[in-house]
Amino acid sequence: MSGVEEVDERVSLDFLKHKMAKFAKERDWDHFHTPRNLLLALVGEVGEVSEIFQWKGEVPKGLPDWKEEERIHLGEELSDVLLYLVRLADMCGIDLGKAALRKLQLNAIKYKASNKYTQHP
Amino acid sequence: MSGVEEVDERVSLDFLKHKMAKFAKERDWDHFHTPRNLLLALVGEVGEVSEIFQWKGEVPKGLPDWKEEERIHLGEELSDVLLYLVRLADMCGIDLGKAALRKLQLNAIKYKASNKYTQHP
Amino acid sequence: MSGVEEVDERVSLDFLKHKMAKFAKERDWDHFHTPRNLLLALVGEVGEVSEIFQWKGEVPKGLPDWKEEERIHLGEELSDVLLYLVRLADMCGIDLGKAALRKLQLNAIKYKASNKYTQHP
Amino acid sequence: MSGVEEVDERVSLDFLKHKMAKFAKERDWDHFHTPRNLLLALVGEVGEVSEIFQWKGEVPKGLPDWKEEERIHLGEELSDVLLYLVRLADMCGIDLGKAALRKLQLNAIKYKASNKYTQHP
Repeated sequence: MSGVEEVDERVSLDFLKHKMAKFAKERDWDHFHTPRNLLLALVGEVGEVSEIFQWKGEVPKGLPDWKEEERIHLGEELSDVLLYLVRLADMCGIDLGKAALRKLQLNAIKYKASNKYTQHP
Repeated sequence: MSGVEEVDERVSLDFLKHKMAKFAKERDWDHFHTPRNLLLALVGEVGEVSEIFQWKGEVPKGLPDWKEEERIHLGEELSDVLLYLVRLADMCGIDLGKAALRKLQLNAIKYKASNKYTQHP
Repeated sequence: MSGVEEVDERVSLDFLKHKMAKFAKERDWDHFHTPRNLLLALVGEVGEVSEIFQWKGEVPKGLPDWKEEERIHLGEELSDVLLYLVRLADMCGIDLGKAALRKLQLNAIKYKASNKYTQHP
Repeated sequence: MSGVEEVDERVSLDFLKHKMAKFAKERDWDHFHTPRNLLLALVGEVGEVSEIFQWKGEVPKGLPDWKEEERIHLGEELSDVLLYLVRLADMCGIDLGKAALRKLQLNAIKYKASNKYTQHP
Protein backbone atom coordinates (compact mmCIF):
# COMPACT_ATOMS: atom_id res chain seq x y z
CA MET A 1 0.00 0.00 0.00
CA SER A 2 1.40 3.35 -1.01
CA GLY A 3 0.31 5.01 2.25
CA VAL A 4 2.93 3.11 4.17
CA GLU A 5 5.67 4.07 1.77
CA GLU A 6 4.74 7.72 1.89
CA VAL A 7 5.12 7.71 5.63
CA ASP A 8 8.41 5.79 5.39
CA GLU A 9 9.88 8.26 2.98
CA ARG A 10 9.34 11.03 5.46
CA VAL A 11 11.03 9.38 8.45
CA SER A 12 12.33 12.41 10.27
CA LEU A 13 15.11 12.82 12.78
CA ASP A 14 12.60 14.28 15.16
CA PHE A 15 10.37 11.22 14.88
CA LEU A 16 13.30 8.92 15.63
CA LYS A 17 14.35 11.08 18.57
CA HIS A 18 10.92 10.77 20.16
CA LYS A 19 10.79 7.04 19.50
CA MET A 20 14.18 6.51 21.12
CA ALA A 21 13.24 8.66 24.11
CA LYS A 22 10.02 6.71 24.67
CA PHE A 23 11.81 3.39 24.23
CA ALA A 24 14.48 4.25 26.80
CA LYS A 25 11.97 5.64 29.29
CA GLU A 26 9.75 2.56 29.15
CA ARG A 27 12.73 0.32 29.91
CA ASP A 28 14.25 2.62 32.53
CA TRP A 29 17.39 3.02 30.44
CA ASP A 30 17.67 6.78 30.75
CA HIS A 31 20.40 6.59 33.40
CA PHE A 32 22.54 4.52 30.99
CA HIS A 33 22.18 7.07 28.21
CA THR A 34 24.90 9.54 29.12
CA PRO A 35 26.74 11.25 26.25
CA ARG A 36 29.94 9.21 26.52
CA ASN A 37 28.11 5.91 27.02
CA LEU A 38 26.14 6.59 23.86
CA LEU A 39 29.23 7.68 21.96
CA LEU A 40 30.98 4.41 22.80
CA ALA A 41 27.85 2.50 21.79
CA LEU A 42 27.93 4.39 18.48
CA VAL A 43 31.60 3.45 17.99
CA GLY A 44 30.65 -0.16 18.66
CA GLU A 45 27.99 -0.07 15.95
CA VAL A 46 30.34 1.59 13.46
CA GLY A 47 32.65 -1.33 14.23
CA GLU A 48 29.89 -3.75 13.27
CA VAL A 49 29.33 -1.97 9.95
CA SER A 50 33.09 -2.17 9.34
CA GLU A 51 33.08 -5.90 10.03
CA ILE A 52 30.55 -6.37 7.24
CA PHE A 53 32.86 -4.63 4.75
CA GLN A 54 36.25 -5.68 6.13
CA TRP A 55 37.37 -8.59 3.91
CA LYS A 56 35.52 -7.66 0.75
CA GLY A 57 38.01 -5.45 -1.04
CA GLU A 58 36.41 -2.63 -3.02
CA VAL A 59 32.62 -2.91 -3.13
CA PRO A 60 30.65 -1.44 -6.06
CA LYS A 61 27.74 0.92 -5.52
CA GLY A 62 24.42 -0.81 -5.01
CA LEU A 63 26.16 -3.95 -3.65
CA PRO A 64 25.27 -5.94 -6.80
CA ASP A 65 26.60 -9.32 -5.63
CA TRP A 66 25.39 -9.26 -2.06
CA LYS A 67 22.87 -11.75 -0.78
CA GLU A 68 19.58 -10.41 0.50
CA GLU A 69 20.45 -11.44 4.06
CA GLU A 70 23.70 -9.46 3.89
CA ARG A 71 21.79 -6.36 2.78
CA ILE A 72 19.31 -6.75 5.59
CA HIS A 73 22.14 -7.19 8.08
CA LEU A 74 23.85 -4.06 6.77
CA GLY A 75 20.57 -2.12 7.01
CA GLU A 76 20.27 -3.17 10.64
CA GLU A 77 23.78 -2.09 11.55
CA LEU A 78 23.46 1.24 9.72
CA SER A 79 20.20 1.76 11.62
CA ASP A 80 21.93 1.07 14.93
CA VAL A 81 24.49 3.75 14.09
CA LEU A 82 21.69 6.16 13.21
CA LEU A 83 19.62 5.45 16.31
CA TYR A 84 22.54 5.92 18.70
CA LEU A 85 23.56 9.06 16.82
CA VAL A 86 20.06 10.50 17.18
CA ARG A 87 20.01 9.59 20.86
CA LEU A 88 23.50 11.00 21.47
CA ALA A 89 22.52 14.32 19.89
CA ASP A 90 19.35 14.40 22.00
CA MET A 91 21.23 13.71 25.24
CA CYS A 92 23.63 16.54 24.31
CA GLY A 93 20.74 18.93 23.78
CA ILE A 94 21.59 19.30 20.11
CA ASP A 95 18.87 19.51 17.44
CA LEU A 96 20.42 17.15 14.91
CA GLY A 97 18.07 18.09 12.08
CA LYS A 98 18.81 21.78 12.42
CA ALA A 99 22.52 21.13 12.82
CA ALA A 100 22.53 19.02 9.64
CA LEU A 101 20.71 21.72 7.64
CA ARG A 102 23.20 24.29 8.88
CA LYS A 103 26.13 22.02 8.00
CA LEU A 104 24.77 21.53 4.48
CA GLN A 105 24.69 25.30 4.08
CA LEU A 106 28.24 25.67 5.40
CA ASN A 107 29.43 22.95 3.03
CA ALA A 108 27.78 24.68 0.09
CA ILE A 109 29.67 27.87 0.91
CA LYS A 110 32.97 26.08 1.53
CA TYR A 111 32.88 23.84 -1.53
CA LYS A 112 31.64 25.83 -4.50
CA ALA A 113 29.77 23.83 -7.13
CA SER A 114 31.64 25.75 -9.81
CA ASN A 115 35.06 24.49 -8.68
CA LYS A 116 36.90 21.70 -10.44
CA TYR A 117 37.75 18.97 -7.93
CA THR A 118 40.52 16.58 -8.94
CA GLN A 119 40.39 15.09 -5.49
CA HIS A 120 37.79 14.98 -2.75
CA PRO A 121 38.40 17.66 -0.12
CA MET B 1 9.16 32.90 11.91
CA SER B 2 7.73 29.68 13.26
CA GLY B 3 7.23 28.27 9.75
CA VAL B 4 10.94 27.76 9.38
CA GLU B 5 11.22 25.91 12.65
CA GLU B 6 8.33 23.64 11.79
CA VAL B 7 10.10 22.58 8.63
CA ASP B 8 13.35 22.07 10.52
CA GLU B 9 11.72 19.77 13.01
CA ARG B 10 10.66 17.49 10.21
CA VAL B 11 14.07 17.11 8.59
CA SER B 12 13.75 13.68 7.03
CA LEU B 13 16.36 11.13 6.04
CA ASP B 14 14.94 11.22 2.54
CA PHE B 15 15.41 14.98 2.33
CA LEU B 16 19.03 14.69 3.45
CA LYS B 17 19.63 11.87 0.96
CA HIS B 18 18.43 14.00 -1.93
CA LYS B 19 20.44 17.00 -0.73
CA MET B 20 23.62 14.92 -0.51
CA ALA B 21 23.03 13.37 -3.95
CA LYS B 22 22.54 16.79 -5.54
CA PHE B 23 25.58 18.20 -3.74
CA ALA B 24 27.84 15.38 -4.93
CA LYS B 25 26.53 15.49 -8.47
CA GLU B 26 27.06 19.24 -8.82
CA ARG B 27 30.71 18.85 -7.71
CA ASP B 28 31.38 15.70 -9.73
CA TRP B 29 32.09 13.77 -6.55
CA ASP B 30 29.99 10.71 -7.37
CA HIS B 31 32.98 8.64 -8.40
CA PHE B 32 34.55 9.23 -4.96
CA HIS B 33 31.42 8.07 -3.15
CA THR B 34 31.93 4.32 -3.15
CA PRO B 35 30.65 2.39 -0.13
CA ARG B 36 34.06 1.80 1.48
CA ASN B 37 35.28 5.35 0.81
CA LEU B 38 32.19 6.68 2.54
CA LEU B 39 32.53 4.22 5.39
CA LEU B 40 36.09 5.38 6.07
CA ALA B 41 34.93 9.00 5.87
CA LEU B 42 32.26 8.13 8.44
CA VAL B 43 34.89 6.57 10.72
CA GLY B 44 36.94 9.74 10.35
CA GLU B 45 34.01 11.88 11.48
CA VAL B 46 33.24 9.59 14.43
CA GLY B 47 36.90 10.13 15.34
CA GLU B 48 36.32 13.89 15.35
CA VAL B 49 33.32 13.52 17.66
CA SER B 50 35.48 11.36 19.94
CA GLU B 51 38.18 14.02 20.01
CA ILE B 52 35.66 16.50 21.37
CA PHE B 53 34.84 14.18 24.28
CA GLN B 54 38.22 12.54 24.83
CA TRP B 55 39.78 14.37 27.80
CA LYS B 56 36.59 15.45 29.53
CA GLY B 57 35.88 12.51 31.81
CA GLU B 58 32.19 11.81 32.32
CA VAL B 59 29.99 14.49 30.74
CA PRO B 60 26.49 15.18 32.13
CA LYS B 61 23.43 15.20 29.89
CA GLY B 62 22.75 18.51 28.23
CA LEU B 63 26.44 19.49 28.43
CA PRO B 64 25.72 22.13 31.11
CA ASP B 65 29.26 23.56 31.33
CA TRP B 66 30.10 23.65 27.65
CA LYS B 67 30.76 26.89 25.84
CA GLU B 68 28.45 27.78 22.98
CA GLU B 69 31.27 27.35 20.46
CA GLU B 70 31.90 23.80 21.73
CA ARG B 71 28.23 22.93 21.27
CA ILE B 72 28.24 24.31 17.75
CA HIS B 73 31.41 22.37 16.96
CA LEU B 74 29.84 19.16 18.31
CA GLY B 75 26.68 19.79 16.26
CA GLU B 76 28.83 20.11 13.15
CA GLU B 77 30.71 16.89 13.77
CA LEU B 78 27.53 14.95 14.61
CA SER B 79 26.06 16.32 11.37
CA ASP B 80 29.07 15.11 9.41
CA VAL B 81 28.54 11.63 10.82
CA LEU B 82 24.87 11.80 9.87
CA LEU B 83 25.47 13.10 6.36
CA TYR B 84 28.05 10.43 5.52
CA LEU B 85 25.80 7.78 7.05
CA VAL B 86 22.89 8.89 4.88
CA ARG B 87 25.12 8.93 1.82
CA LEU B 88 26.64 5.52 2.61
CA ALA B 89 23.19 3.97 2.94
CA ASP B 90 22.14 5.57 -0.35
CA MET B 91 25.21 4.28 -2.19
CA CYS B 92 24.46 0.80 -0.81
CA GLY B 93 20.89 0.99 -2.10
CA ILE B 94 19.50 0.83 1.42
CA ASP B 95 16.48 2.89 2.48
CA LEU B 96 17.80 4.10 5.82
CA GLY B 97 14.45 5.43 7.04
CA LYS B 98 12.69 2.13 6.42
CA ALA B 99 15.59 0.18 7.87
CA ALA B 100 15.50 2.32 11.03
CA LEU B 101 11.74 1.85 11.46
CA ARG B 102 12.18 -1.90 11.04
CA LYS B 103 15.03 -1.94 13.57
CA LEU B 104 12.91 -0.04 16.09
CA GLN B 105 10.25 -2.73 15.73
CA LEU B 106 12.80 -5.53 16.11
CA ASN B 107 14.22 -3.84 19.22
CA ALA B 108 10.73 -3.52 20.71
CA ILE B 109 10.23 -7.27 20.28
CA LYS B 110 13.69 -8.17 21.59
CA TYR B 111 13.69 -5.89 24.60
CA LYS B 112 10.28 -6.03 26.27
CA ALA B 113 9.23 -2.87 28.06
CA SER B 114 7.92 -5.03 30.92
CA ASN B 115 11.35 -6.49 31.71
CA LYS B 116 13.49 -5.27 34.57
CA TYR B 117 16.89 -4.25 33.27
CA THR B 118 19.66 -4.08 35.86
CA GLN B 119 22.13 -3.51 33.05
CA HIS B 120 21.84 -2.23 29.51
CA PRO B 121 21.72 -5.07 26.98
CA MET C 1 59.15 -20.03 35.68
CA SER C 2 60.57 -16.54 35.55
CA GLY C 3 62.30 -17.19 32.20
CA VAL C 4 58.95 -17.14 30.43
CA GLU C 5 57.98 -13.84 32.01
CA GLU C 6 61.26 -12.24 31.05
CA VAL C 7 60.66 -13.13 27.44
CA ASP C 8 57.06 -11.89 27.68
CA GLU C 9 58.16 -8.52 28.94
CA ARG C 10 60.20 -8.02 25.81
CA VAL C 11 57.46 -8.77 23.27
CA SER C 12 58.54 -6.60 20.37
CA LEU C 13 56.61 -5.16 17.47
CA ASP C 14 59.01 -6.89 15.14
CA PHE C 15 58.30 -10.26 16.75
CA LEU C 16 54.54 -9.75 16.38
CA LYS C 17 54.97 -8.66 12.77
CA HIS C 18 56.80 -11.87 11.91
CA LYS C 19 54.27 -13.98 13.79
CA MET C 20 51.37 -12.35 11.92
CA ALA C 21 53.11 -12.75 8.57
CA LYS C 22 53.76 -16.45 9.18
CA PHE C 23 50.21 -16.98 10.42
CA ALA C 24 48.67 -15.37 7.34
CA LYS C 25 50.99 -17.18 4.95
CA GLU C 26 50.25 -20.61 6.42
CA ARG C 27 46.51 -20.02 5.99
CA ASP C 28 46.76 -18.42 2.57
CA TRP C 29 45.28 -15.19 3.92
CA ASP C 30 47.80 -12.82 2.34
CA HIS C 31 45.44 -11.82 -0.45
CA PHE C 32 42.86 -10.71 2.11
CA HIS C 33 45.36 -8.53 3.92
CA THR C 34 45.22 -5.37 1.85
CA PRO C 35 45.67 -2.05 3.68
CA ARG C 36 42.00 -1.02 3.63
CA ASN C 37 40.75 -4.51 4.53
CA LEU C 38 43.04 -4.49 7.55
CA LEU C 39 42.05 -0.95 8.48
CA LEU C 40 38.36 -1.90 8.53
CA ALA C 41 39.22 -5.01 10.57
CA LEU C 42 41.03 -2.71 13.00
CA VAL C 43 37.98 -0.44 13.23
CA GLY C 44 35.87 -3.52 13.94
CA GLU C 45 38.12 -4.51 16.83
CA VAL C 46 38.14 -0.98 18.26
CA GLY C 47 34.36 -1.31 18.15
CA GLU C 48 34.58 -4.45 20.26
CA VAL C 49 36.75 -2.69 22.84
CA SER C 50 34.19 0.13 22.92
CA GLU C 51 31.36 -2.33 23.51
CA ILE C 52 33.14 -3.55 26.64
CA PHE C 53 33.22 0.00 28.04
CA GLN C 54 30.01 1.39 26.60
CA TRP C 55 27.47 1.20 29.45
CA LYS C 56 29.86 1.44 32.38
CA GLY C 57 30.09 5.18 32.92
CA GLU C 58 33.50 6.36 34.09
CA VAL C 59 35.84 3.46 34.86
CA PRO C 60 38.68 3.88 37.40
CA LYS C 61 42.25 2.98 36.54
CA GLY C 62 43.13 -0.66 37.13
CA LEU C 63 39.46 -1.71 36.65
CA PRO C 64 39.10 -2.49 40.38
CA ASP C 65 35.57 -3.93 40.21
CA TRP C 66 35.88 -5.97 37.03
CA LYS C 67 35.53 -9.71 37.05
CA GLU C 68 38.54 -11.74 35.92
CA GLU C 69 36.64 -12.89 32.81
CA GLU C 70 35.97 -9.27 31.83
CA ARG C 71 39.67 -8.44 32.13
CA ILE C 72 40.60 -11.43 30.00
CA HIS C 73 38.02 -10.44 27.41
CA LEU C 74 39.36 -6.89 27.32
CA GLY C 75 42.93 -8.20 26.96
CA GLU C 76 41.81 -10.25 23.97
CA GLU C 77 40.13 -7.33 22.24
CA LEU C 78 43.05 -4.97 22.89
CA SER C 79 45.31 -7.68 21.44
CA ASP C 80 43.15 -7.91 18.33
CA VAL C 81 43.52 -4.16 17.83
CA LEU C 82 47.30 -4.48 18.29
CA LEU C 83 47.68 -7.45 15.95
CA TYR C 84 45.72 -5.80 13.13
CA LEU C 85 47.62 -2.56 13.68
CA VAL C 86 50.95 -4.38 13.40
CA ARG C 87 49.77 -6.19 10.28
CA LEU C 88 48.39 -2.99 8.72
CA ALA C 89 51.69 -1.19 9.24
CA ASP C 90 53.55 -4.15 7.73
CA MET C 91 51.31 -4.26 4.65
CA CYS C 92 51.89 -0.51 4.22
CA GLY C 93 55.67 -1.03 4.36
CA ILE C 94 55.91 1.02 7.54
CA ASP C 95 58.27 0.05 10.37
CA LEU C 96 55.90 0.62 13.27
CA GLY C 97 58.59 0.39 15.96
CA LYS C 98 60.75 3.04 14.31
CA ALA C 99 57.73 5.21 13.59
CA ALA C 100 56.66 5.00 17.25
CA LEU C 101 60.13 5.95 18.50
CA ARG C 102 60.17 8.89 16.12
CA LYS C 103 56.70 9.97 17.25
CA LEU C 104 57.77 9.84 20.89
CA GLN C 105 60.64 12.17 20.04
CA LEU C 106 58.34 14.54 18.14
CA ASN C 107 55.91 14.56 21.07
CA ALA C 108 58.74 15.36 23.50
CA ILE C 109 59.68 18.38 21.36
CA LYS C 110 56.07 19.52 20.90
CA TYR C 111 54.97 19.13 24.50
CA LYS C 112 57.70 20.40 26.80
CA ALA C 113 57.86 18.69 30.18
CA SER C 114 58.43 22.08 31.78
CA ASN C 115 55.07 23.46 30.63
CA LYS C 116 52.05 23.70 32.88
CA TYR C 117 49.12 21.87 31.31
CA THR C 118 45.70 22.81 32.63
CA GLN C 119 44.16 20.67 29.92
CA HIS C 120 45.41 17.80 27.82
CA PRO C 121 46.55 18.96 24.38
CA MET D 1 75.31 2.90 12.46
CA SER D 2 73.73 -0.55 12.51
CA GLY D 3 73.57 -0.56 16.32
CA VAL D 4 70.71 1.92 16.26
CA GLU D 5 68.70 -0.12 13.81
CA GLU D 6 69.16 -3.29 15.82
CA VAL D 7 67.69 -1.57 18.84
CA ASP D 8 64.86 -0.17 16.76
CA GLU D 9 63.91 -3.59 15.48
CA ARG D 10 63.40 -4.76 19.02
CA VAL D 11 61.07 -1.96 20.14
CA SER D 12 59.01 -3.74 22.75
CA LEU D 13 55.57 -3.04 24.13
CA ASP D 14 57.10 -2.87 27.56
CA PHE D 15 59.55 -0.20 26.45
CA LEU D 16 56.75 1.90 24.97
CA LYS D 17 54.67 1.47 28.11
CA HIS D 18 57.46 2.84 30.29
CA LYS D 19 58.13 5.70 27.86
CA MET D 20 54.46 6.70 27.88
CA ALA D 21 54.25 6.47 31.68
CA LYS D 22 57.30 8.68 32.11
CA PHE D 23 56.04 11.15 29.51
CA ALA D 24 52.64 11.51 31.21
CA LYS D 25 54.15 11.79 34.68
CA GLU D 26 56.57 14.54 33.67
CA ARG D 27 53.71 16.60 32.24
CA ASP D 28 51.27 15.86 35.05
CA TRP D 29 48.89 14.17 32.60
CA ASP D 30 48.19 11.08 34.68
CA HIS D 31 44.84 12.37 35.88
CA PHE D 32 43.70 12.74 32.24
CA HIS D 33 44.65 9.17 31.41
CA THR D 34 41.59 7.29 32.58
CA PRO D 35 40.57 4.21 30.60
CA ARG D 36 37.63 5.82 28.78
CA ASN D 37 39.50 9.06 28.06
CA LEU D 38 42.28 7.02 26.46
CA LEU D 39 39.82 4.85 24.56
CA LEU D 40 38.19 7.92 23.02
CA ALA D 41 41.64 9.31 22.19
CA LEU D 42 42.40 5.99 20.48
CA VAL D 43 39.16 6.23 18.48
CA GLY D 44 40.16 9.74 17.45
CA GLU D 45 43.51 8.52 16.15
CA VAL D 46 41.90 5.61 14.27
CA GLY D 47 39.73 8.29 12.68
CA GLU D 48 42.85 10.12 11.53
CA VAL D 49 44.24 6.94 9.94
CA SER D 50 40.88 6.47 8.20
CA GLU D 51 41.00 10.02 6.85
CA ILE D 52 44.30 9.21 5.15
CA PHE D 53 42.70 6.26 3.33
CA GLN D 54 39.17 7.57 2.85
CA TRP D 55 39.04 8.81 -0.75
CA LYS D 56 41.69 6.57 -2.25
CA GLY D 57 39.67 3.53 -3.29
CA GLU D 58 41.54 0.24 -2.99
CA VAL D 59 45.19 0.78 -2.06
CA PRO D 60 47.83 -1.83 -3.05
CA LYS D 61 50.22 -3.31 -0.50
CA GLY D 62 53.36 -1.28 0.04
CA LEU D 63 51.56 1.94 -1.01
CA PRO D 64 53.56 2.11 -4.29
CA ASP D 65 52.22 5.47 -5.49
CA TRP D 66 52.29 7.34 -2.21
CA LYS D 67 54.48 10.35 -1.71
CA GLU D 68 57.11 10.15 1.03
CA GLU D 69 55.29 12.78 3.08
CA GLU D 70 52.09 10.71 2.97
CA ARG D 71 53.96 7.65 4.25
CA ILE D 72 55.49 9.66 7.07
CA HIS D 73 52.08 11.06 7.98
CA LEU D 74 50.58 7.56 8.00
CA GLY D 75 53.45 6.31 10.19
CA GLU D 76 52.72 9.10 12.66
CA GLU D 77 49.02 8.34 12.86
CA LEU D 78 49.59 4.58 13.20
CA SER D 79 52.06 5.40 15.99
CA ASP D 80 49.47 7.53 17.76
CA VAL D 81 47.07 4.59 17.67
CA LEU D 82 49.79 2.31 19.06
CA LEU D 83 50.86 4.69 21.81
CA TYR D 84 47.32 5.25 23.08
CA LEU D 85 46.64 1.52 22.86
CA VAL D 86 49.74 0.77 24.97
CA ARG D 87 48.75 3.45 27.47
CA LEU D 88 45.12 2.24 27.62
CA ALA D 89 46.24 -1.32 28.35
CA ASP D 90 48.60 -0.04 31.05
CA MET D 91 45.89 2.05 32.72
CA CYS D 92 43.64 -1.04 32.69
CA GLY D 93 46.35 -3.12 34.38
CA ILE D 94 46.63 -5.38 31.35
CA ASP D 95 50.00 -6.69 30.15
CA LEU D 96 49.51 -6.10 26.44
CA GLY D 97 52.53 -8.16 25.37
CA LYS D 98 51.38 -11.21 27.29
CA ALA D 99 47.80 -10.75 26.16
CA ALA D 100 48.95 -10.57 22.52
CA LEU D 101 51.05 -13.75 22.83
CA ARG D 102 48.10 -15.53 24.39
CA LYS D 103 45.78 -14.30 21.63
CA LEU D 104 48.18 -15.54 18.97
CA GLN D 105 48.05 -18.98 20.59
CA LEU D 106 44.25 -18.91 20.77
CA ASN D 107 44.07 -17.89 17.11
CA ALA D 108 46.40 -20.76 16.13
CA ILE D 109 44.07 -23.21 17.87
CA LYS D 110 40.91 -21.65 16.43
CA TYR D 111 42.12 -21.30 12.85
CA LYS D 112 44.05 -24.41 11.87
CA ALA D 113 46.77 -23.88 9.31
CA SER D 114 45.67 -27.07 7.58
CA ASN D 115 42.19 -25.69 6.79
CA LYS D 116 41.22 -24.36 3.39
CA TYR D 117 39.88 -20.82 3.74
CA THR D 118 37.78 -19.55 0.87
CA GLN D 119 36.99 -16.49 2.92
CA HIS D 120 38.62 -14.76 5.84
CA PRO D 121 37.02 -15.75 9.14
